[in-house]
Amino acid sequence: MARGYFQFKKRIQILSGGSAVGELEARGPLRDYFDLTSSDSKFGMDTWEKAEAEMCRQSHSVAIKKAGITADDIDVALAGDLTNQCAASTFGMKDKEIPFVGLYGACSTFALSLGMGSLLLEGGDQKTVLCASSSHFCSAERQYRFPLEYGCQRPPTAQTTVSACGSVVLSAASEEKGIRITEFLVGTVRDYGIRDASNMGAAMAPACADTLCRYFLVSGRKPEDFDMILTGDLGKEGSGILRELCRIGGVEISRNHDDCGNMIFDPITQDVKSGGSGCGCSAAVFASYILHRMKKAEISDILLVGTGALLSAGTVLQKETIPGVAHLIRIQREGK
Amino acid sequence: MARGYFQFKKRIQILSGGSAVGELEARGPLRDYFDLTSSDSKFGMDTWEKAEAEMCRQSHSVAIKKAGITADDIDVALAGDLTNQCAASTFGMKDKEIPFVGLYGACSTFALSLGMGSLLLEGGDQKTVLCASSSHFCSAERQYRFPLEYGCQRPPTAQTTVSACGSVVLSAASEEKGIRITEFLVGTVRDYGIRDASNMGAAMAPACADTLCRYFLVSGRKPEDFDMILTGDLGKEGSGILRELCRIGGVEISRNHDDCGNMIFDPITQDVKSGGSGCGCSAAVFASYILHRMKKAEISDILLVGTGALLSAGTVLQKETIPGVAHLIRIQREGK
Repeated sequence: MARGYFQFKKRIQILSGGSAVGELEARGPLRDYFDLTSSDSKFGMDTWEKAEAEMCRQSHSVAIKKAGITADDIDVALAGDLTNQCAASTFGMKDKEIPFVGLYGACSTFALSLGMGSLLLEGGDQKTVLCASSSHFCSAERQYRFPLEYGCQRPPTAQTTVSACGSVVLSAASEEKGIRITEFLVGTVRDYGIRDASNMGAAMAPACADTLCRYFLVSGRKPEDFDMILTGDLGKEGSGILRELCRIGGVEISRNHDDCGNMIFDPITQDVKSGGSGCGCSAAVFASYILHRMKKAEISDILLVGTGALLSAGTVLQKETIPGVAHLIRIQREGK
Repeated sequence: MARGYFQFKKRIQILSGGSAVGELEARGPLRDYFDLTSSDSKFGMDTWEKAEAEMCRQSHSVAIKKAGITADDIDVALAGDLTNQCAASTFGMKDKEIPFVGLYGACSTFALSLGMGSLLLEGGDQKTVLCASSSHFCSAERQYRFPLEYGCQRPPTAQTTVSACGSVVLSAASEEKGIRITEFLVGTVRDYGIRDASNMGAAMAPACADTLCRYFLVSGRKPEDFDMILTGDLGKEGSGILRELCRIGGVEISRNHDDCGNMIFDPITQDVKSGGSGCGCSAAVFASYILHRMKKAEISDILLVGTGALLSAGTVLQKETIPGVAHLIRIQREGK
């Protein structure tokens, strides 16, 4: 088997998805698909960091409830986020007594959690896992860039960190119907020398192209075999670079490629520059809109490629480049 | 199977261990067991963060070399550290084209990487993984506490972040001899309301006691079944609390309990307060001294419990409590 490539033998089924989003996201094109929202993006808390943790808590709870189970039925939870030391995920989990695995892959964390969660079901006798990731515009802005009060101008290539959490319950099921995770390809850290922290699409696109080209090579499949190749989150700038890099690699994805960062906001009415980003973006888009479309059989076989920019405020200050990583998941609808 | 508990059916063998440590660690009691050291803890770099990444790079390389393979033979690497956004692990990995999974569990990250790495071998057709974690006193001090130049006094309960990286190569082997990882218990986030960031032993001990008591319950084993119950890293303060909490839980571990944070420094000649801590402590102690003792058959069946304090500089400033988590690994020596 190729390096980092997994084809699951068990039926890893997606039982449910839950999502909680902030105010801007709740005014976007996918507003009808999200489960919960907070009119001031604070979720009743007094700091942005606590708001993000509370958003996680609520998103997990709704996913667990929709699966028709309780938190005690979850064998392991896997989650990560952008806050330093992944505090939002930890604090969002600490009221639930669930064995917890912390992950970090920047915006690729959601796809990574689905992959590692599936592996955990594949390799053990555990029955049910929770996979999640989150981000919050306000906690991310002040951590990575400037305090919001500073009113910093952002260039057109900058993406807008999404305030959202997406949570998915997976189960090793025996049923021959439902939505399944069937493959997982672990991404490689790629560094093309990008140093502009306001152009993370450009930093992540090479890693994404690498993972996609590697996937088509090792699986023997072609882009047209899928109803959708969904990246999360390259935004407008990064999506263009990805398509071009794939084309150079001999793979044409533009016919069925879409990006969660381009879907969550309306580029005309919402001033989000190059689109959405943040661990919560692909998580919330997948756990709501995409799952909805798969259940309705509008799409039945998709690739989800989580793309992460592996920078910190410190690496930027030390003039380091921004490496990227991209993890790929194949999700298929089975039965009627 | 109990929640978060895995007994591996495949032979997950530890092929090799590599370690790179700083100047203070190289003067400690385990000095003869480490592979590499840097006389100024800078590893030839101009910032502490770059030094930590370089230390990782060197530690991985020595582990890979000792296993008699090359980086191209590693199917997946799993690593994490204490720097914001786990930058040391990422930058330490980016010159090697290895599929990479980022983990975060504070000082429990090394045990988590061994557990998730074993699961990855158990659940797929991959052959070889690299598991690692690191920390650096200087990058951690200025990130979590104060700039070194400030010369801050630390209370006796404070632990000293270890400058070290430990790397281990695992393989799904068919041989009936060697050192194997046989069990993994994922820890639960535990919060006993500790708010003192200078007493992380107290914050982590409850999670550690919880994981140990849960392990003895679900496995049906007793502390005396093991040659060593090794925690990493509770230090002097936390170790005492752990033993007492276990006693309350009906488990007596004091006869064979030891802690990596108590082993790496000499408490008499080295001014390290409550002992060592940091993701790199248990990683380097295990990958050097412990593996050496297991190879010599001085110890043949041990539990390694990684303990993490899930705080960030931000959660401390926001007066949050410090939750803990502890992941358990059983390691056994097989054959002669």
